Amino acid sequence: MSITLYHQPLSPFCRKIRIILGEKKLPFESVIEMPWRQREEFLALNHGGTVPVLIDQDGTIVSESAVIADYLDEVYPDNSVLLGGPAQRAEIRRIAQWYDLKFDAEVTKLVLFEKIDKRLMKLGEPDMQTIRAGIANLPYHMDYLNYLCEQRHWLAGEVFSLADIAVAAHLSSIDYIGDVPWVHFPQAKEWYARVKSRPSFRPILADFVPGMPPPRIYADLDF
Amino acid sequence: MSITLYHQPLSPFCRKIRIILGEKKLPFESVIEMPWRQREEFLALNHGGTVPVLIDQDGTIVSESAVIADYLDEVYPDNSVLLGGPAQRAEIRRIAQWYDLKFDAEVTKLVLFEKIDKRLMKLGEPDMQTIRAGIANLPYHMDYLNYLCEQRHWLAGEVFSLADIAVAAHLSSIDYIGDVPWVHFPQAKEWYARVKSRPSFRPILADFVPGMPPPRIYADLDF
Repeated sequence: MSITLYHQPLSPFCRKIRIILGEKKLPFESVIEMPWRQREEFLALNHGGTVPVLIDQDGTIVSESAVIADYLDEVYPDNSVLLGGPAQRAEIRRIAQWYDLKFDAEVTKLVLFEKIDKRLMKLGEPDMQTIRAGIANLPYHMDYLNYLCEQRHWLAGEVFSLADIAVAAHLSSIDYIGDVPWVHFPQAKEWYARVKSRPSFRPILADFVPGMPPPRIYADLDF
Repeated sequence: MSITLYHQPLSPFCRKIRIILGEKKLPFESVIEMPWRQREEFLALNHGGTVPVLIDQDGTIVSESAVIADYLDEVYPDNSVLLGGPAQRAEIRRIAQWYDLKFDAEVTKLVLFEKIDKRLMKLGEPDMQTIRAGIANLPYHMDYLNYLCEQRHWLAGEVFSLADIAVAAHLSSIDYIGDVPWVHFPQAKEWYARVKSRPSFRPILADFVPGMPPPRIYADLDF
């Protein structure tokens, strides 16, 4: 039995797991799941009804992206995304969590829900005020990212890690809509170009929502 | 140098770390920090400005309770709160995260902010509608807790873990205000009585907010 991943292409939380699987060179069966449809078979896997959900080769079912990330690194330790001593691992987790909770609440959720999910869910027109509020919160977070990139080669230190993966997952989802002001944040842009060129990132750059093509720069390594 | 913990007594996230330190029998210097005061020295430790923040014996600074929990278990593996194989650890983390994110957003944050934080912050009268909304969300979560307690001795299996600690931390904070309807959830109540009797929980039961004494049942082992 191979690994199965239930996911939604533009969800940063699902992208995080797809990139980890790519880094570890673990092939997986991809099941596109729109969580708002609340399919009974899917709810049986995860009562919470959220994506991603991973079913491992031995049948173990794991939900919640932060939990899946730790699980995968424990079961498949090759090409670890949590490499280092306890302090280093804490720094990796701190940055990943900052984006998964704070950046998500202040930017991703506002922009992505209005521009993408609402359309897929047929909930009517996007609310421009909510989108503008999300976009307005971006520079503060980009400043911090730029600052980290000035200090370090990768976000949590010298090694590519879950921190880079989580941050790139969120920014790539916003980038699909074309709203990341890369030009004002050169160090962050240089970091993102390096992330984009990793083989694990290729499937992300190939994502395509029918009727909503990404801007040209989305998949471009020279953006 | 001993461990230092910056914390706020009724914060479930801080209680989680205090209980872990208790389980591991690690003494620590306690610094009560009201994060809304935004003390400069505190912000220098954690730009995010949230409690808890832990300074380890070697000077390592760790913030975010989920990150601190993993860090402590890696540096001080005795009396692990994340015991078991990858699947077991995933189940522990899933339950802890459910309470730290979902229960917190739907119950703790609403009730605790209105009843306690607002008063400490001198932000005026609590909003009764918000409190009622939080309390109204409790039975759904208590049902799930009761269900878990019917299946297992401890919440994630046969061993006391971070799952029990996270859930008890949240419920103990609500319990300080006296709003947990234990009588309707006998298995959950029986579980909480066992948690309450652990030595690591004693400092939690001794907490006292000046001018806001807890109800008698709060510290009572026979509630």
